[in-house]
Amino acid sequence: MERPLCIAICGLGTVAQGVLELLRNNADIITARAGRPIRVLHIASRSEKAGVDLLGASFSTDLSSVVEDPAVDLVVELIGGEAAADELVRSALVAGKHVITANKAIIATHGDAYLRLAQDAGVAFGFESAVAGGIPIIAALTRGLAANRILSLAGIINGTSNYILTAMSESGQTFAAALHDAKALGYAEADPTFDIEGIDAAHKLTIMASLAFGLGFRFEEVYTEGIDSITSEDIEYARQLGYRIKHLGIARVVPQGVELRVHPTLVPEKQLLASVAGVMNAVMVNADAAGDTIYYGAGAGAGPTASAVVADLIDIGKGTARAWLPAPIEDSGLKVVPMGDIRSAYYLNIPSLDKSGVFARVATVLSEHQISIEAVIQKEQAVQLKADEAWVPIVILTHEVSEGAMNRAIVALEDSEDVIGPIKLIRVEHFDDD
Amino acid sequence: MERPLCIAICGLGTVAQGVLELLRNNADIITARAGRPIRVLHIASRSEKAGVDLLGASFSTDLSSVVEDPAVDLVVELIGGEAAADELVRSALVAGKHVITANKAIIATHGDAYLRLAQDAGVAFGFESAVAGGIPIIAALTRGLAANRILSLAGIINGTSNYILTAMSESGQTFAAALHDAKALGYAEADPTFDIEGIDAAHKLTIMASLAFGLGFRFEEVYTEGIDSITSEDIEYARQLGYRIKHLGIARVVPQGVELRVHPTLVPEKQLLASVAGVMNAVMVNADAAGDTIYYGAGAGAGPTASAVVADLIDIGKGTARAWLPAPIEDSGLKVVPMGDIRSAYYLNIPSLDKSGVFARVATVLSEHQISIEAVIQKEQAVQLKADEAWVPIVILTHEVSEGAMNRAIVALEDSEDVIGPIKLIRVEHFDDD
Repeated sequence: MERPLCIAICGLGTVAQGVLELLRNNADIITARAGRPIRVLHIASRSEKAGVDLLGASFSTDLSSVVEDPAVDLVVELIGGEAAADELVRSALVAGKHVITANKAIIATHGDAYLRLAQDAGVAFGFESAVAGGIPIIAALTRGLAANRILSLAGIINGTSNYILTAMSESGQTFAAALHDAKALGYAEADPTFDIEGIDAAHKLTIMASLAFGLGFRFEEVYTEGIDSITSEDIEYARQLGYRIKHLGIARVVPQGVELRVHPTLVPEKQLLASVAGVMNAVMVNADAAGDTIYYGAGAGAGPTASAVVADLIDIGKGTARAWLPAPIEDSGLKVVPMGDIRSAYYLNIPSLDKSGVFARVATVLSEHQISIEAVIQKEQAVQLKADEAWVPIVILTHEVSEGAMNRAIVALEDSEDVIGPIKLIRVEHFDDD
Repeated sequence: MERPLCIAICGLGTVAQGVLELLRNNADIITARAGRPIRVLHIASRSEKAGVDLLGASFSTDLSSVVEDPAVDLVVELIGGEAAADELVRSALVAGKHVITANKAIIATHGDAYLRLAQDAGVAFGFESAVAGGIPIIAALTRGLAANRILSLAGIINGTSNYILTAMSESGQTFAAALHDAKALGYAEADPTFDIEGIDAAHKLTIMASLAFGLGFRFEEVYTEGIDSITSEDIEYARQLGYRIKHLGIARVVPQGVELRVHPTLVPEKQLLASVAGVMNAVMVNADAAGDTIYYGAGAGAGPTASAVVADLIDIGKGTARAWLPAPIEDSGLKVVPMGDIRSAYYLNIPSLDKSGVFARVATVLSEHQISIEAVIQKEQAVQLKADEAWVPIVILTHEVSEGAMNRAIVALEDSEDVIGPIKLIRVEHFDDD
């Protein structure tokens, strides 16, 4: 048996406690699989937590002392946040320690720098836990599909958003009511901005796209739209058209470069992603040899995230992690496609006057912009505006068109007298032309 | 760049051609990821195939000459069949070559011997391609979930059976008609016995269970039942009860040992596995930390299988495969639970006389065997037997009970005058008590 892998865990929140619990409960199999014991030398956190078994580790509130201990082989960063976590990861790598982090925000922003530091120091950098919790999606992208050119990926990668959309879909709840429940159940944070506005999903998409396409970590170039504008009416219209609304992170190689986008999306109800309910995550990968594969599981929580952290520990303990470390990308040459240049099908919800000829004029405007209609829902119950005026939503599903053309058509429609308010646009994915 | 990994490919069928095509098309990324070029030195097969690009390899009809060449580092066994393939794998391992094989039948039967030979020779043995084609399920079980105790797994792991059941379900086809179509579409072989009777699925279940539970390869102990007794009526009754019928391979750790079984199964329609359609495969794994994860993709075909073969090639080329080779198991101490001792819920289709009091008497017999009823479908259209007699199917869903008790109840029911023929039994999985 080799000498133990000596680690320091920074942070003592839910995930860190999950890691300690897993290291304790499954010590036998973890040691056997790593080929050596994993010994927790230090735990560093702002404050100690009563009742947490520290596995004999020393406790400190001083992060830097932990990193400086020459007996530490590996630092697990679980303090969260950005500035302090970033500093911790960099200083640990520079000090020649292996690093494992579950911090998607700092990887999505500084991942290239971390890979360079790890390469220079000859250490491993593990981040399986940063994307989709217990699903080994980083390993699938880098190892399982290593023989493939990955063409696209699409994922339900934010449990909070998926919980809310599922609740709205299953019980007809409003967004606000579903968000309220999600908070009560612990599925949404007190300040849910990162989840609801798609930022968390954009972090995860950045990491997956970087690995899938050798793109580098380009978080700031991800188009990001959250779920807060989705209404239960949209969900119901989508259902009538044979679709579910899911919040997807999509990355795709196209002739002009790569698309990187996070937004609500109509998904055909027969597509497996449409059936992913509640807080669960799933990622679909389209690769040239393997075709479509899907990876499904819990995207958050102490157990699933700890499962990924400890898988990285075993990989590093075994000595195999470094060989699989992605090379840092200086410039992939790939351009991120501006949203105006992407092509998509669209769901439009057009609030229109309830008068004869309106639909024909709407269809004419779309046609003038080379947009053809796939399906229509019309003549729901009219809502009275004034004594002699009423409005109805015209719901249209279009065929694929460039987003630029779609935006121009929307401006033209919103300028017309027939349309009485802003038009709702939701992108549609068929996944059949990958 | 290190020296090339020099390989011999034995067999020149669909999968071997897929491997050659992938090595040619993706040579750039495969070389970069393996850290060295992969050079095909020899191809050995019974006969050369016109129009296949051999990538500059020599062609031979003599398998043993290929294995004996000291320049060969690695042998890819794709000849299929059993005796010759087994001999090839053993002789290659004994000669100190790394071996990759997609041959589930020989691994399920001789896997322990292969792992021992590989360990003794200090070489790698790769078989990602043997289970579920392009889905990296072997890597998920051994690496992605390495920190976990795996508690159970359940998989749709035979595309032919899933195609047939899907066709029967979607179009109401009979088994015979769906099998006919599957043959015409190339989804079933001329002799479909291995697929239809569940043997192929049992091979794959054996391999997964061996890795998941450290069990050794115990194919001969897998309970195996095929799909040929499933009727479109069963599928329709199951649907009315809220279930789909899927052919599952199930392995589960229970207090008495491990269950290893392959059979048609009622799966709740909300469960993601129920939505896996056509020839696609999916495996659900329940692990103590990660919870439920599901892996979905194409289970067969040249591209997906080649994706897995070349993933193993890259892993071996990188030098990381050997460290992850499962240890050969002499005796895990785990006992395979006899079917009489498993517990399950059941679907029963009881052909009964259409007379008053029959259902009450059936319910009484079940109750006498401590079997409680969860749901019933009764009084479908009666079928006339004689002038004064008619029969109807009584369809019952039971709560969980031991299979021994269920078998005794069935004997008692079939002995009664009310029941006019053999009772159809299909097991039900809820997946909620894992």
